[in-house]
Amino acid sequence: MSWTVYLSGEIHSDWRQQLIDGASAKNLPVTFTSAVTDHEASDGAGDLLGEEQDQFWRDHKSSKVNAIRTKTHIENCDIAIIRFGAKYKQWNAAFDAGYCAALGKLYITLHDEDVIHPLKEVDASAMAWAKTPAQVVEILQYVTSAK
Amino acid sequence: MSWTVYLSGEIHSDWRQQLIDGASAKNLPVTFTSAVTDHEASDGAGDLLGEEQDQFWRDHKSSKVNAIRTKTHIENCDIAIIRFGAKYKQWNAAFDAGYCAALGKLYITLHDEDVIHPLKEVDASAMAWAKTPAQVVEILQYVTSAK
Amino acid sequence: MSWTVYLSGEIHSDWRQQLIDGASAKNLPVTFTSAVTDHEASDGAGDLLGEEQDQFWRDHKSSKVNAIRTKTHIENCDIAIIRFGAKYKQWNAAFDAGYCAALGKLYITLHDEDVIHPLKEVDASAMAWAKTPAQVVEILQYVTSAK
Amino acid sequence: MSWTVYLSGEIHSDWRQQLIDGASAKNLPVTFTSAVTDHEASDGAGDLLGEEQDQFWRDHKSSKVNAIRTKTHIENCDIAIIRFGAKYKQWNAAFDAGYCAALGKLYITLHDEDVIHPLKEVDASAMAWAKTPAQVVEILQYVTSAK
Amino acid sequence: MSWTVYLSGEIHSDWRQQLIDGASAKNLPVTFTSAVTDHEASDGAGDLLGEEQDQFWRDHKSSKVNAIRTKTHIENCDIAIIRFGAKYKQWNAAFDAGYCAALGKLYITLHDEDVIHPLKEVDASAMAWAKTPAQVVEILQYVTSAK
Amino acid sequence: MSWTVYLSGEIHSDWRQQLIDGASAKNLPVTFTSAVTDHEASDGAGDLLGEEQDQFWRDHKSSKVNAIRTKTHIENCDIAIIRFGAKYKQWNAAFDAGYCAALGKLYITLHDEDVIHPLKEVDASAMAWAKTPAQVVEILQYVTSAK
Amino acid sequence: MSWTVYLSGEIHSDWRQQLIDGASAKNLPVTFTSAVTDHEASDGAGDLLGEEQDQFWRDHKSSKVNAIRTKTHIENCDIAIIRFGAKYKQWNAAFDAGYCAALGKLYITLHDEDVIHPLKEVDASAMAWAKTPAQVVEILQYVTSAK
Amino acid sequence: MSWTVYLSGEIHSDWRQQLIDGASAKNLPVTFTSAVTDHEASDGAGDLLGEEQDQFWRDHKSSKVNAIRTKTHIENCDIAIIRFGAKYKQWNAAFDAGYCAALGKLYITLHDEDVIHPLKEVDASAMAWAKTPAQVVEILQYVTSAK
Repeated sequence: MSWTVYLSGEIHSDWRQQLIDGASAKNLPVTFTSAVTDHEASDGAGDLLGEEQDQFWRDHKSSKVNAIRTKTHIENCDIAIIRFGAKYKQWNAAFDAGYCAALGKLYITLHDEDVIHPLKEVDASAMAWAKTPAQVVEILQYVTSAK
Repeated sequence: MSWTVYLSGEIHSDWRQQLIDGASAKNLPVTFTSAVTDHEASDGAGDLLGEEQDQFWRDHKSSKVNAIRTKTHIENCDIAIIRFGAKYKQWNAAFDAGYCAALGKLYITLHDEDVIHPLKEVDASAMAWAKTPAQVVEILQYVTSAK
Repeated sequence: MSWTVYLSGEIHSDWRQQLIDGASAKNLPVTFTSAVTDHEASDGAGDLLGEEQDQFWRDHKSSKVNAIRTKTHIENCDIAIIRFGAKYKQWNAAFDAGYCAALGKLYITLHDEDVIHPLKEVDASAMAWAKTPAQVVEILQYVTSAK
Repeated sequence: MSWTVYLSGEIHSDWRQQLIDGASAKNLPVTFTSAVTDHEASDGAGDLLGEEQDQFWRDHKSSKVNAIRTKTHIENCDIAIIRFGAKYKQWNAAFDAGYCAALGKLYITLHDEDVIHPLKEVDASAMAWAKTPAQVVEILQYVTSAK
Repeated sequence: MSWTVYLSGEIHSDWRQQLIDGASAKNLPVTFTSAVTDHEASDGAGDLLGEEQDQFWRDHKSSKVNAIRTKTHIENCDIAIIRFGAKYKQWNAAFDAGYCAALGKLYITLHDEDVIHPLKEVDASAMAWAKTPAQVVEILQYVTSAK
Repeated sequence: MSWTVYLSGEIHSDWRQQLIDGASAKNLPVTFTSAVTDHEASDGAGDLLGEEQDQFWRDHKSSKVNAIRTKTHIENCDIAIIRFGAKYKQWNAAFDAGYCAALGKLYITLHDEDVIHPLKEVDASAMAWAKTPAQVVEILQYVTSAK
Repeated sequence: MSWTVYLSGEIHSDWRQQLIDGASAKNLPVTFTSAVTDHEASDGAGDLLGEEQDQFWRDHKSSKVNAIRTKTHIENCDIAIIRFGAKYKQWNAAFDAGYCAALGKLYITLHDEDVIHPLKEVDASAMAWAKTPAQVVEILQYVTSAK
Repeated sequence: MSWTVYLSGEIHSDWRQQLIDGASAKNLPVTFTSAVTDHEASDGAGDLLGEEQDQFWRDHKSSKVNAIRTKTHIENCDIAIIRFGAKYKQWNAAFDAGYCAALGKLYITLHDEDVIHPLKEVDASAMAWAKTPAQVVEILQYVTSAK
């Protein structure tokens, strides 16, 4: 079985690449999917359909275009990794976690100790909490390849 | 038909009470449900089953006890109102929004203009965005009682 | 058992009232629900949340507010009656029919003979096609009350 | 991931071919499916099982044969593109939109500005509204291939 | 809890009445629902919407009207009792059994020993096989009222 | 797309082979699946697990082993063809039809005119009624291969 | 809201009564349901339909009659309490836990510390682990009645 | 069709290997999946994410990591084989059986005669009960390969 792993959350550090490289180094039977991680392209996704004056509707239009991709990938994944970084609101990551929970999609959170308390509801529905990308890779190796 | 409305999010302002009073003043056919909003009681919900040394597990245990209530109320509601205030991470509110979205539960967000951008994914799956509790009451009146 | 019957479609004739009166005259165990049928109120439903400049977004906002009511009533109904009149596009009625079909909600169409051909896909998923409100009342009587 | 895109609606212009050519020119990882678009063949699909005297039943029989194909393709698609042209009732396109909405299948509408108002309910459940096939191709490129 | 019990199958003996009387005598917390059991009314259910020349379409139209009732009652029941008598094809009873099985609705079959072999697939998905209405009443008593 | 077609019902004529040959001659993108059609092997499927004294339990055990295959194939098919022949009770075929109907699996019935009336409920949920295997092949060609 | 709580597992101690009395003393908005807890009646439930020679089939028949009740109550409950005592295999309690987990029914386990390790998979899907009936009552009070 | 068979339960005998060898010898179109069967690795699965002091939480963390694998494999299997051996509580095997039952996943139990009575609820939802791995192989051959 080949596993599909959706990567959700923070786009300002290289955690995705660390995961991809780690899984590749161990030759894991894993394919990664993700939202568009180019911040500007993502914010302007709706502009492809015509520009908007109003900031709310520009965001709205872009978010829905992006959701075509994210909802499809979440529904097709076997596991999601949901990353919370040090900065920004990151409500989209928590939204993805709730979305996974309701669909019965299993997810692992990836975050530092200092946000344990505000993430308690998100962690309560997770299958695991990892502190580093390397730990996630170890879990993926165990889950997909142990005997 | 009597409508059940779940109130999710911020617990540090009186928006819940404003909604309840507003709906009551208009005599709307609406019943409100909510998570436990006493912050300390909520954080200590798991202590009823024995105390924990480790902060992560204390939070984990309490969150799961709280989730018995929140998941049940979300699954039984007709609409959810999800409130984002000015302070704190409020990832649980975004988590509830994602949970509602995946279940097909309709929700209305309630927040100020200054968080439009970080809430764009949450708003993209909402049925409406209100800025004040009074607006939510108007929408509830229209939805439940207009001819 | 009390049956809930959702009335979808045309708002420019009195077919809803004919159905309600007919069912009442026969004392049927039936409750009717419906979208808001006041055309102006419906078009302006979103204005309760602030006015819009752009016609597309005004329509969008109002449609979503209206959908809180229509989706909830469709999901709670036992049968839907979907009426196509002589005028207007009435894409919302066809949309409701498709929505019902995919949910497994049973529906009856109500329309004249001259639109049989363009409605063939809508009728193909219906449980019955009626030409008059009186026929719908007879079917409701049979279905809910025959021995 | 290869994406399956269902093309629903108008059969009297070449928008399907424009989409297919556009996606092909950009080498997108996309496969298109569609209803039978030969008008006469579609109207006579039921005749393969014996001819009918009554127009209603001829249409009924053909529509159900066609629905074997359309329901199967809709359930297997990742996204639907739903096109409304300038002519005809096109209730089948609105029906497909409602069907997609209830299944949670994401769809994009493709139509001119002059039908914004009658399509407001259909657009309210869509992920995007495009005015030209070229815009749809751009969205498909972004959604399937951006980084 | 009050249990709703759907009675499917044979309409040419008084087994339904025996069940109703038996449950009533024991004062069981049970409500019975059923298809229309007046053979002629049932065959002519579609005639309410206009008469048909073709026998196939007359049957088709009536069956769909009847299905509004039977599908609704099956989806609302807690248990179904499916009765196979000595005469006729009774494919509708076997159809109801398959329908229940796929929905996860629990059912009990009621039939004589001489049809064990042809009913083996129907019995394989049943929760119990009873030979007499009195046995069904005993099972209902046990299931709804034992301590 | 390759279509999977489940063949249910009569095992005493060669209709399955006619369908397979017809589809093969036209090179249709279709794969056929089926229950075990060797009557004796099917009746004794449970004997592989030890013999039974009681006829009811022998049938029960065999039917459940057979159901491992039939339920799996039905859940994996795109369309089912359900054949009713001239002889025997064939309740398993009607059971499969009801099972398909409740799952939303599309099916075509294949039977002679003389059983229209007893099959009316089964036909009412079917997408088409064919009288000959050749007609089924034509429908499969149209559905899978027309433009 | 009135909560329905299903009580599963051990039948050789009075934990059910302690829960019922505790909830009653606190006047909680809770209704309890349960399997038949009379061991002999439960083992002989199938005998109502005729006696069996073979022990496997006697157990099989009785278990299915009992499952009419247990499956119905589990599907109708808001929460399940699953009790593991000191004696017997109690595979039915673990089966109920798995059944709840897959349905998304929330459950609380009730067991001593000495079976933590063998119950780790059952506890991993639970919302809480209680050691005494009094703790369960406290959790029910918090979940149903806290502000 | 290639069948995926999930192997659940006892890890202290070589029944898995017997099944794999038996299926391989007969060249069956079957792929086997399983939980991690190395007892120590399984108990310590959570240690990859940091060690725990408290035995309950160590077990909890490991069980959830293991559940990423087991839930994914159960949801992707066509059939499960659930083995109960002579020793240990094996509540995880009964949990898997209940999980399969609620999902509609078909399963076969594999156990000796002396545990018929305590396994009666687990067997009541099974499609078959086998006493030896060789019998399971025979059933797999029949189900996947008979004509």
